[in-house]
Amino acid sequence: MESPGRRYFRYTAPGVLSARLAAEQPTTGVERMLSRTRYALFGRPISSEAELEQRLPKWKALATFSSDAMSSVAYATEASMFTLLAAGTAAFSFVLPISIAVVTVLVIVTFSYRQTIRAYPSGGGSYIVAHANLGMLPGLIAAAALLTDYVLTVAVSVSSGIFALVSAFPAIGNGLELIVVAIIGVMLVNLRGVRESGTLFAGPTYIFVATALLLVAVGIVRSLFGETPHVTGVTPSAVPLAGLSLLLLMRAFADGCSAMTGVEAISNGTPAFKPPESMNARTTMLAMSGLLAVMFLGISYLAGASGAIPSDHESILSQIGRAIFGVGPLYYVLQFSTLGILVLAAQTSFADFPRLSSILARDRFMPRQFAYRGERLAFNNGIVALAVISIVVVVAFGGRVESLIPLYAIGVFTAFTLSQAGMVRHWWRERGPGWRRSMVINGVGATATAIVTVIFAIAKFALGAWVILVIVPVLVLVMWLIHREYDDEAIGIDLRPQSVIGPPNRRQRMIVVAGTLNRAVVQAVKVARTMSGEVEVVHVTSDRAAGEAFRDQFERQVPGIAVTIVESPYRTLIKPLVRYLEVEHEAHPDEVLVVLIPEHIARHWWERLLYNQNAERITAALLGRRNIVVLDAPYRRDS
Amino acid sequence: MESPGRRYFRYTAPGVLSARLAAEQPTTGVERMLSRTRYALFGRPISSEAELEQRLPKWKALATFSSDAMSSVAYATEASMFTLLAAGTAAFSFVLPISIAVVTVLVIVTFSYRQTIRAYPSGGGSYIVAHANLGMLPGLIAAAALLTDYVLTVAVSVSSGIFALVSAFPAIGNGLELIVVAIIGVMLVNLRGVRESGTLFAGPTYIFVATALLLVAVGIVRSLFGETPHVTGVTPSAVPLAGLSLLLLMRAFADGCSAMTGVEAISNGTPAFKPPESMNARTTMLAMSGLLAVMFLGISYLAGASGAIPSDHESILSQIGRAIFGVGPLYYVLQFSTLGILVLAAQTSFADFPRLSSILARDRFMPRQFAYRGERLAFNNGIVALAVISIVVVVAFGGRVESLIPLYAIGVFTAFTLSQAGMVRHWWRERGPGWRRSMVINGVGATATAIVTVIFAIAKFALGAWVILVIVPVLVLVMWLIHREYDDEAIGIDLRPQSVIGPPNRRQRMIVVAGTLNRAVVQAVKVARTMSGEVEVVHVTSDRAAGEAFRDQFERQVPGIAVTIVESPYRTLIKPLVRYLEVEHEAHPDEVLVVLIPEHIARHWWERLLYNQNAERITAALLGRRNIVVLDAPYRRDS
Repeated sequence: MESPGRRYFRYTAPGVLSARLAAEQPTTGVERMLSRTRYALFGRPISSEAELEQRLPKWKALATFSSDAMSSVAYATEASMFTLLAAGTAAFSFVLPISIAVVTVLVIVTFSYRQTIRAYPSGGGSYIVAHANLGMLPGLIAAAALLTDYVLTVAVSVSSGIFALVSAFPAIGNGLELIVVAIIGVMLVNLRGVRESGTLFAGPTYIFVATALLLVAVGIVRSLFGETPHVTGVTPSAVPLAGLSLLLLMRAFADGCSAMTGVEAISNGTPAFKPPESMNARTTMLAMSGLLAVMFLGISYLAGASGAIPSDHESILSQIGRAIFGVGPLYYVLQFSTLGILVLAAQTSFADFPRLSSILARDRFMPRQFAYRGERLAFNNGIVALAVISIVVVVAFGGRVESLIPLYAIGVFTAFTLSQAGMVRHWWRERGPGWRRSMVINGVGATATAIVTVIFAIAKFALGAWVILVIVPVLVLVMWLIHREYDDEAIGIDLRPQSVIGPPNRRQRMIVVAGTLNRAVVQAVKVARTMSGEVEVVHVTSDRAAGEAFRDQFERQVPGIAVTIVESPYRTLIKPLVRYLEVEHEAHPDEVLVVLIPEHIARHWWERLLYNQNAERITAALLGRRNIVVLDAPYRRDS
Repeated sequence: MESPGRRYFRYTAPGVLSARLAAEQPTTGVERMLSRTRYALFGRPISSEAELEQRLPKWKALATFSSDAMSSVAYATEASMFTLLAAGTAAFSFVLPISIAVVTVLVIVTFSYRQTIRAYPSGGGSYIVAHANLGMLPGLIAAAALLTDYVLTVAVSVSSGIFALVSAFPAIGNGLELIVVAIIGVMLVNLRGVRESGTLFAGPTYIFVATALLLVAVGIVRSLFGETPHVTGVTPSAVPLAGLSLLLLMRAFADGCSAMTGVEAISNGTPAFKPPESMNARTTMLAMSGLLAVMFLGISYLAGASGAIPSDHESILSQIGRAIFGVGPLYYVLQFSTLGILVLAAQTSFADFPRLSSILARDRFMPRQFAYRGERLAFNNGIVALAVISIVVVVAFGGRVESLIPLYAIGVFTAFTLSQAGMVRHWWRERGPGWRRSMVINGVGATATAIVTVIFAIAKFALGAWVILVIVPVLVLVMWLIHREYDDEAIGIDLRPQSVIGPPNRRQRMIVVAGTLNRAVVQAVKVARTMSGEVEVVHVTSDRAAGEAFRDQFERQVPGIAVTIVESPYRTLIKPLVRYLEVEHEAHPDEVLVVLIPEHIARHWWERLLYNQNAERITAALLGRRNIVVLDAPYRRDS
């Protein structure tokens, strides 16, 4: 008799079994076909022990975690210029200074986050750091800001990527359908799990980085030799004119800061690195910021030098590429790899949103379902939720990047600020070796990002940032309510740690509810007989004669059981039954009343339409009463 | 301790209690408010014993059951004339002969149905008679034809009623919204129950009959004195011209036969009459047919004499009324009472459709839910279903009567034929006193209605009757499949009548499934201990350390229970658990394995989103196995 057991389980210790893959296999033909389809789409299940093999080497980690940050060079310069265009093309002289300011912030934030990686090798996302060091409310604000931003990252990145495609092939139109298809594609890849995503994403990321660096190098070299390339044939976007003001410059700076979205990804994802996780993550963080700074500054310089100008029909990067490479193979590589990295940038969110959700779920701030990993180690519920919400946002905004940008990045900088401030508190508490230096670095980071956040809020409020200032508090409230609900329910349902449950000592009375005499009722009566000598069957009917017929049949076929008929002249079932049980319970307050509810379960869902849901209604009406135990006894005929 | 019991129940015999109205009363404030609203809308609950008081005297029964039949004089003549118009107004000379032919059929059918009332005092609808005497298939065909026709009756009657309103007040437009509102109104009245409907409907019915008879009398008297009234100022409907052919005459005859829809209502409703039911019903049947014949012939005569002509803007009855009464108070009484009786005609269907559905449900041809009576003795599910389907049909056809008429009446005549044929068989089998005479009467009826049915099928096939010839077989098939499903399920679930269940004799092993240690699990363990000395707790986890922590906690807080940890490296719950239970069961094939599944039930529906549906999934996966009993042990904290 041990053979079936050994086929499905390894017996690892007394009272401990470990399921083999064979135990997961379906037994019916239809199920087998379904699971084969699932394996083909998402890969075979991966056991938890195999997780280490799924860890990422640095070069894959760079592609997985930094596509968001690096891809933003495709739109950050352009967003700045679009804002400055209001003051005329002469204002473009501010593009390079603004970009240098952005890169300065980037450097500060990078070094600040390297401290976080060191302190939190198991993953130090803004929520964790802020929650642990500053308390629940700052933690939830950081979490809400990040969740909002992950959704916007997906929406903006995929929309921008499709804009790169439209720039090269204007015939495509606005491509809303393409955006939706791309989001679904990224979702499916993520449902396959982490490592495959790394492999898949390395190609486009490195091709984009190489092409962008080549573009910058060729452009600068040509400038140095006095052959500055010139952009031609562009229709500028029509924008309302405005004077050059401090507010306009603040807005342009805020736009430029969208280049920094996603730089926190590595610090969240430290545990996905191969060991030594912390050191590898710190190195990768440096590499990412360096590449990002070079590309961003280079493109901002070339945009000014080549006379590129924001247009509804062609992106700035496309204009520069056309001016430097000419419309040839290199230009198309640039455009397609831009599309590629932007679509993959969404990947950073697809890695982070589900991970953050699972942490929030573990801490009881989000529904428990977000904490479960799927067969392929991915947090499937979070992945699907992100895809669905992003698609809703994209469709609601018609896939237009410029409407989404103002909402963008304020969440990131809020989270940055709370996280760095949390780190300052962390070092102050810990006071380990070198704590003063670390505290200063994080203090500078917190101050810089706080300033940027304030600039954002002022500059972008009227342009749409107020939406975020509404959504984030609402999210915080919802998460807090969920937490309170879980806590509240736990008081009623959890066992006090010190209480010890002894053997049962009170007498119990069994009542079986029966509408008709069938095998479900017989099974319930058999069970009831093993629980007590006192078993009573209660039958509710609106027809006295039918009730007596039931009693006769019951007494003949199941002898020795008392049958009570409850007549219901108003033809209801639940109320008279509940009243009867209450009356019985009041008559015997010293006993536990166990109510057994037999239920005939039809074999298929469509058959269920033909039967009543009475068992569920009776159960719902009886629950929550002291000393009344409800047992549902479902019965389905052998199939 | 007897006082709470006596407040809620009368103890009528040993082991028999009868619930008082107090037992129905809700206990919480919200529920009390809801039930007060319900009582206000639908009246207080009526006990089954009070049913006799709800019986109808003849004059109310005439209004309740014959508004369908009598109201059809409002459109039957018009439908005939509309068809004849294709051959020019000269063809209107055929209106009176056709009407005489229709009345001849009416007389035959009336006498035929009086035989049915005599033979089936408990209600002899076409389904019952055809099923009992001709077999299942003819019974189901009759039922499907009638159900279809009840829906069409509601759609056509209410649409025609609103047309009467539009004739008098053209500004209203086509009034689709009014039609829907009227159907919902009739539905609400019916949900109040039978007797109120009778009272409410008597007024409009008798006003219409009186006005129509006055119209006919005044018109004929004026004709006799040579002052034939003349219709003026009507724009005829535009129809495609065609020659006068046999097919056209057949169509006109078929249209006229729509006057006969609803004459079977009394024979279905016999049990709703006051005793002696059968005699009262036969008398009422005669009265109804007599009134119908007089009004129909009179209006057909006056239509020809006054030169009325079908129009899209004014009904024939309105034209005649205007010519005879002039546009004065009597004309408006005529129009409003036409509206009234047509809306009430739908009432016949609202009385019959739910009653037929309940009979079909009792015979297992329709879902069981249709057999339950509501608090007010009405078959609520059938009433609501009829209203919903009718509204769908009306909206689908845009509320245009002329598109619905071709579908109409073929179902009625199919049912007539099957029912009369069944009666012939009935008398042949019974051979009671006077059986030959009865058999001849029903034989003539069956032959006449069979001929009309064939005329219908030929004349109306291309105009839309084919739809009915598709729907009826589909309905028959669905009813047959439902019946087979119930029978099939009964084989697996019903107890054989001769089997007697003895006390349980096999040993049982208890396994409690636990994901965490909470009060739901403790309740389940307590229950399990009363059922067997052998209780085991099984815990599935993907994390070995968490599993061991669970075991430690469990052994400390619930001592004396064996804990088995099933490790699930692929993070699934159901499959490893089911395999483990299967393996356990195979290892002890001589014992019954009782699996207790504790389930924590949240108190509100929205809280349930926060918890898993694992208990349901485990139950579904385990059901239908021999010698494995599944017990769900739901637990909700005291509220």
